[in-house]
Amino acid sequence: MKTIDVCLSPELIHLYDVSDKAVVVVDILRATSCMVTAFAHGVECIVPIASERECEQMKLKGYVISGERNGQKIPGFDKGNSPFEYMDENISGLKIAFTTTNGTQAIEKSKGAKKILIGSFLNLSAVSKYLLMSDDNILIVCAGWKGKVNLEDSLFAGALVDTLRKHIEPDCDAPIIAQELYLRAKDDMLNFLSTSSHVKRLNRLNIHKDIEFCLTQDKYGVIPVLNRGELTLL
Amino acid sequence: MKTIDVCLSPELIHLYDVSDKAVVVVDILRATSCMVTAFAHGVECIVPIASERECEQMKLKGYVISGERNGQKIPGFDKGNSPFEYMDENISGLKIAFTTTNGTQAIEKSKGAKKILIGSFLNLSAVSKYLLMSDDNILIVCAGWKGKVNLEDSLFAGALVDTLRKHIEPDCDAPIIAQELYLRAKDDMLNFLSTSSHVKRLNRLNIHKDIEFCLTQDKYGVIPVLNRGELTLL
Repeated sequence: MKTIDVCLSPELIHLYDVSDKAVVVVDILRATSCMVTAFAHGVECIVPIASERECEQMKLKGYVISGERNGQKIPGFDKGNSPFEYMDENISGLKIAFTTTNGTQAIEKSKGAKKILIGSFLNLSAVSKYLLMSDDNILIVCAGWKGKVNLEDSLFAGALVDTLRKHIEPDCDAPIIAQELYLRAKDDMLNFLSTSSHVKRLNRLNIHKDIEFCLTQDKYGVIPVLNRGELTLL
Repeated sequence: MKTIDVCLSPELIHLYDVSDKAVVVVDILRATSCMVTAFAHGVECIVPIASERECEQMKLKGYVISGERNGQKIPGFDKGNSPFEYMDENISGLKIAFTTTNGTQAIEKSKGAKKILIGSFLNLSAVSKYLLMSDDNILIVCAGWKGKVNLEDSLFAGALVDTLRKHIEPDCDAPIIAQELYLRAKDDMLNFLSTSSHVKRLNRLNIHKDIEFCLTQDKYGVIPVLNRGELTLL
């Protein structure tokens, strides 16, 4: 039987052998939700970049540069970290370089994995179906908030574990913790999340609409995967 | 208002400033449960030691040496890691040097904290009452299993957060996650824990009785605290 595990923070990733695993990176608010939305609207590729400066330099190579730090768009960048910025028809065919506080760092730390997929509530079923058909052991890597565990990414991990659990054996306790959390929250995730520190932080930035959107399940069927440093559609 | 936070694994402790905090170290199965039991039966002090060899050398200084690795007593040591080994009347007045896979490592990594207290379900209310009366911000440090997050320590963290939550502000999402987990489990923790990887591991060692005992709430009123490398009663 395949195994599933959850790495609740990128700071714990050294405890996992990713080399034989399909890693699902998740940063619900809002990096991976943006990436999935962008692919659903036809972007050609997204290059996730940990450093702000390196991301900025991609402008010279013809990339749209997207970036956020501490929840706000980086000054001078083309786009920020709201999924609504990635729904435009004009986005089709574009190449994007993307840097965020947590999400792109989590992708960076997952390098070395057999596969890296991008997960969000928006493409939950698509990711789940793909993982069920694949033979790989699974590790969900939560982006968290500056190394700390967060509620929304743990909830996504729990939701994904919940869809797979009958077919896949949990490798440790973190998948159980995440699943139990999801089962407690699933009937009203928005309300459940209202206590979360990140949601409070984002509400101060007036992006309630973003949060609601990022919790929508199965809006899109796309799965971005990392190939040689570049996300493209599976 | 005082704050409360939960460090779900000792591998995340660098993310927290412990210098102004009362840290509660917890390793439910079984290090901190043993320590609390030992103090309830009159031991004079316990020196927690991360390395097996250093612990062994304490024998020459007149200490009883206690040690466990991977759930089993270290060969040649006086005692292992079952709370039932620390209920003997003859234990009164003894000095113990103690090394375990996770618990003593968590204490080691918490050094630098304003205070370090030892928590377990056995002394939950005593710890909770003490923290309510103290002015310190609080950090619960879960010992986990070899760096990974585990169910039983997270449950204890949740139980402690639950007793304090009305009076103390959560500093981040981990206290919320732990509390929600506890609320889901509290009516039948033993059954809830039966899915945990550590409990499965321990059940193979035939120590179901230990697990049941370690989940008993408020059996003892003692609070061990660390002073200059040595645990004594508060």
